[in-house]
Amino acid sequence: AMDGAPPPTSPTGLSAYVAVSQLLGLTLLATTGAWLGRYRGGVAWHSPLQFNAHPLCMVLGMVFLQGDALLVYRVFRHEAKRSTKTLHALLHGLALVIALVGIIAVFESHRSKGIPDMYSLHSWCGMATFVLYLLQWLLGCGFFLFPGASFSLRGQYKPQHIFFGITLFILSITSCLLGITEMLLFKISDSYSHFVPEGILANTLGVLLVAFGLVVGYVLTREEWKRPPLAEELALSMDFKTLTEGESPGG
Amino acid sequence: AMDGAPPPTSPTGLSAYVAVSQLLGLTLLATTGAWLGRYRGGVAWHSPLQFNAHPLCMVLGMVFLQGDALLVYRVFRHEAKRSTKTLHALLHGLALVIALVGIIAVFESHRSKGIPDMYSLHSWCGMATFVLYLLQWLLGCGFFLFPGASFSLRGQYKPQHIFFGITLFILSITSCLLGITEMLLFKISDSYSHFVPEGILANTLGVLLVAFGLVVGYVLTREEWKRPPLAEELALSMDFKTLTEGESPGG
Repeated sequence: AMDGAPPPTSPTGLSAYVAVSQLLGLTLLATTGAWLGRYRGGVAWHSPLQFNAHPLCMVLGMVFLQGDALLVYRVFRHEAKRSTKTLHALLHGLALVIALVGIIAVFESHRSKGIPDMYSLHSWCGMATFVLYLLQWLLGCGFFLFPGASFSLRGQYKPQHIFFGITLFILSITSCLLGITEMLLFKISDSYSHFVPEGILANTLGVLLVAFGLVVGYVLTREEWKRPPLAEELALSMDFKTLTEGESPGG
Repeated sequence: AMDGAPPPTSPTGLSAYVAVSQLLGLTLLATTGAWLGRYRGGVAWHSPLQFNAHPLCMVLGMVFLQGDALLVYRVFRHEAKRSTKTLHALLHGLALVIALVGIIAVFESHRSKGIPDMYSLHSWCGMATFVLYLLQWLLGCGFFLFPGASFSLRGQYKPQHIFFGITLFILSITSCLLGITEMLLFKISDSYSHFVPEGILANTLGVLLVAFGLVVGYVLTREEWKRPPLAEELALSMDFKTLTEGESPGG
């Protein structure tokens, strides 16, 4: 079936954009670490520094890993769909676990300091994003990974899954920017307006988060870079179509 | 040429989504007005209330009008392309003028109160968004409205224009959320964590901004709702293609 097909290469430019996204992602993590380590006393669990686990986990889970989970269909464009799908679900699952640790960190830190929970716009956006992200992951597993859903049902849900997937990635980055702004105004409200290094560094982290989202979003939405169906998938999908169309007369 | 073509109707669902977007947009403006009027003393230009013109202008220009400018190709899907394009450019132009007034308001207010400019993440994101939005508008006019650019050049730029257009709309909403968080932490930092009505109202404004972006984004990206080329445009574009392909041999 593969005779005469061109050898599997990635489109020009795609690899460069993916490389830039990974450099940005690592810079993101390093910048978060530098902010917390250099200016906020570092990260520790059973200590007054427990709060600092929150930004680190959220940037790692909800931004870097979530972003990379979205990219797998572009990066592994010639692998079997099943393996790519499993990797996509695993990366999102890992992101969810790390984000949960980050959420526990802030709730425990609030409790130990007597600070109320869930009053700020950051907490509303962040919690809504996390809950919907978990829901999206469960729906994704149910529709695409487990064998129950029919071919036509999968086809109907897929565009919704993609739209809400990109939306949740954007909302995750937005929530991070809100968190950075909150943290700066809590910790350095007096010196922030004097362009102190901590303010500049945290602002730069915000700009890097936007840049990461921009590059990942560009890779995902560029029409020519979408994953082409493999020859055997096309054949299979036509078999399925015939089957499902046969099932429901007049559909 | 139109004989036998179906009568121009909008796809099912599109009108409902557009109606919801407009209701959300008006609620957005009303909520901003209620926040500023009820809790922040209202809006006035040559007064200590000049700052309050900033959030009002930015929500009106950079969110409501920018969003509606993006929707015109979906709403006026059976009008001539030229008129729709002109309306798209005019709405963005109006949004830019109103946003400029909002930016002047905050710079004059800072000057009169001795507050430094451009130190916060909100100001970095917001200013970058405004400058790139102006650039995008100038490029859009240059490529699509003035007759200079060739058909193939327009075709190459169009996907970039669409990607960066949606990106700038998202960044505008993100900048608004950052501004809301900043303003609440400046004005009611002591009572915000006690769930005071002003905090809940401003958080709700943030949620409404996200909801408006979500509905507009859904309408824009849904494949079946994209504007179909009119019969005469298809014919015209094929003429142009033949012409441009004839111009450059081997292109």
